[in-house]
Amino acid sequence: MDVRGLEPGSGEGPLAIICGGGSLPFAVAETVARRGRPVILFALQGFADPACVAEYPHHWIAVGQYGRFRRLAEKEGVRDIVFIGSLIRPALSQLRLDLGTLRVLPRVMALFRGGDDHLLSGIVRILEQDGFHVFGAHEVAPELLMPEGVLGRYAPSERDRDDIARGLALIATIGAFDVGQAAVVADNHVLAVEAIEGTDQMLSRIAEMRQSGRIRALAGTGVLIKAPKPAQERRVDLPSIGPQTIEGVVRAGLQGLALVAGETMIAEPARVAEAADRAKVFVVGIPGAGR
Amino acid sequence: MDVRGLEPGSGEGPLAIICGGGSLPFAVAETVARRGRPVILFALQGFADPACVAEYPHHWIAVGQYGRFRRLAEKEGVRDIVFIGSLIRPALSQLRLDLGTLRVLPRVMALFRGGDDHLLSGIVRILEQDGFHVFGAHEVAPELLMPEGVLGRYAPSERDRDDIARGLALIATIGAFDVGQAAVVADNHVLAVEAIEGTDQMLSRIAEMRQSGRIRALAGTGVLIKAPKPAQERRVDLPSIGPQTIEGVVRAGLQGLALVAGETMIAEPARVAEAADRAKVFVVGIPGAGR
Repeated sequence: MDVRGLEPGSGEGPLAIICGGGSLPFAVAETVARRGRPVILFALQGFADPACVAEYPHHWIAVGQYGRFRRLAEKEGVRDIVFIGSLIRPALSQLRLDLGTLRVLPRVMALFRGGDDHLLSGIVRILEQDGFHVFGAHEVAPELLMPEGVLGRYAPSERDRDDIARGLALIATIGAFDVGQAAVVADNHVLAVEAIEGTDQMLSRIAEMRQSGRIRALAGTGVLIKAPKPAQERRVDLPSIGPQTIEGVVRAGLQGLALVAGETMIAEPARVAEAADRAKVFVVGIPGAGR
Repeated sequence: MDVRGLEPGSGEGPLAIICGGGSLPFAVAETVARRGRPVILFALQGFADPACVAEYPHHWIAVGQYGRFRRLAEKEGVRDIVFIGSLIRPALSQLRLDLGTLRVLPRVMALFRGGDDHLLSGIVRILEQDGFHVFGAHEVAPELLMPEGVLGRYAPSERDRDDIARGLALIATIGAFDVGQAAVVADNHVLAVEAIEGTDQMLSRIAEMRQSGRIRALAGTGVLIKAPKPAQERRVDLPSIGPQTIEGVVRAGLQGLALVAGETMIAEPARVAEAADRAKVFVVGIPGAGR
């Protein structure tokens, strides 16, 4: 199955969506299908929501079943693939063990000494060597890219904007270590830095520390900042949020969240805006560091 | 009570130890008392262990009772103070509210827009303006400074040493944001960055992610790295470990921990070494970045 030579983005055949947890994969599937292109979900066992998966043509695969994926993809005439990367990061990490017996072992082994970026861009390389075209969710569903400006009714204050600037600078700085798509800053004070635990877990930590009194004095302040790491493989690992992120922000007692516009994804923008308005928190798209 | 003009470290009068949780305050008290200098504990309510406090002359104070502290210190003839800073960091954060009504309010307010370093060095400045001499725990109990080299029976491997170097570089880099005295790195992959949650909480997070399978593949690898932030006020906030840190490292499934020698404290070195040997993890003191 060598499909090299096809125009990338030619849109021939169905679009394969390799999907993990969360609502973003289905938001992408819906967006693409609405445009008239058939989609096939390759749902990762233990991660993708079965009820949502059932609404689309799909195959279930286990993490690491690359041979099965290739067979099914060939049968379905799949050339173009989308990873919903930020949501399947934990699963991808587990590839380290599960792919061990397969023929890509030597190539995969070379990827292990590094962070997620290294691993993810390596997987993309392997897929492309095998003739697939790998697209980012933002390329096939640009409607889901966070736009610049305020989403919903609330806007960040001057103090919030200072916190956002500090969080962005922090994320840019630690990106060299292939870590950190997110941070929480309150009144110029860095409360949390995300590594592999994910944004939801980081927000839960803030909520717990507020409950235990550890950040008692800061209640009602603080911003979640999300941005891609500088070297990030944008096709498989763009930071994303959904309605559950708003719930996390509210539980953590923050004032709002800031996302780099055009480089972060937002599943179900209408539901996110509605949840933010109801909770009186802001959601803002800000220009990236490079602009 | 202006005692300016006294030689710092003159050792006149009893040494006041303002102590929070953990075993380090008592390790310092024992070390100082063994040398023949009287100590008085100012035990922070809700943080210091009452059973340990009871073994020394002491007063209980609430966080923010600066007036009470001054009165008692004057009565006791206290000139020299030691903070066991890294352990009372949560309490110090709460100063923001509790000191609000006291006469130092204007000075304290000026400290709020910043991280711990800013706050802690500001508190030291206030104490010094009031005539106290503030010493670091490492100055009055240098026996408790982490020495260079291996403590106990186990030593880091080549891979562990790579992880240590990466963790040290990360901590040095993010120090500019007044955050991070610790990180966990496994096989060149940054698993966690400590912000205000503290080392014990960060280690629990690693343990949980192992249990949930999120870092399944890395079981049995990884290092906790602790180092002072570059700009850290070393008198009140040197990173420290104790026997409970070894327990956390073991639960997190790590291979060991590395501390910057001469700039981190180790409460109960003998018990730490014994616990590390029993669990077959290494504890190593490494040269700081500046050396």
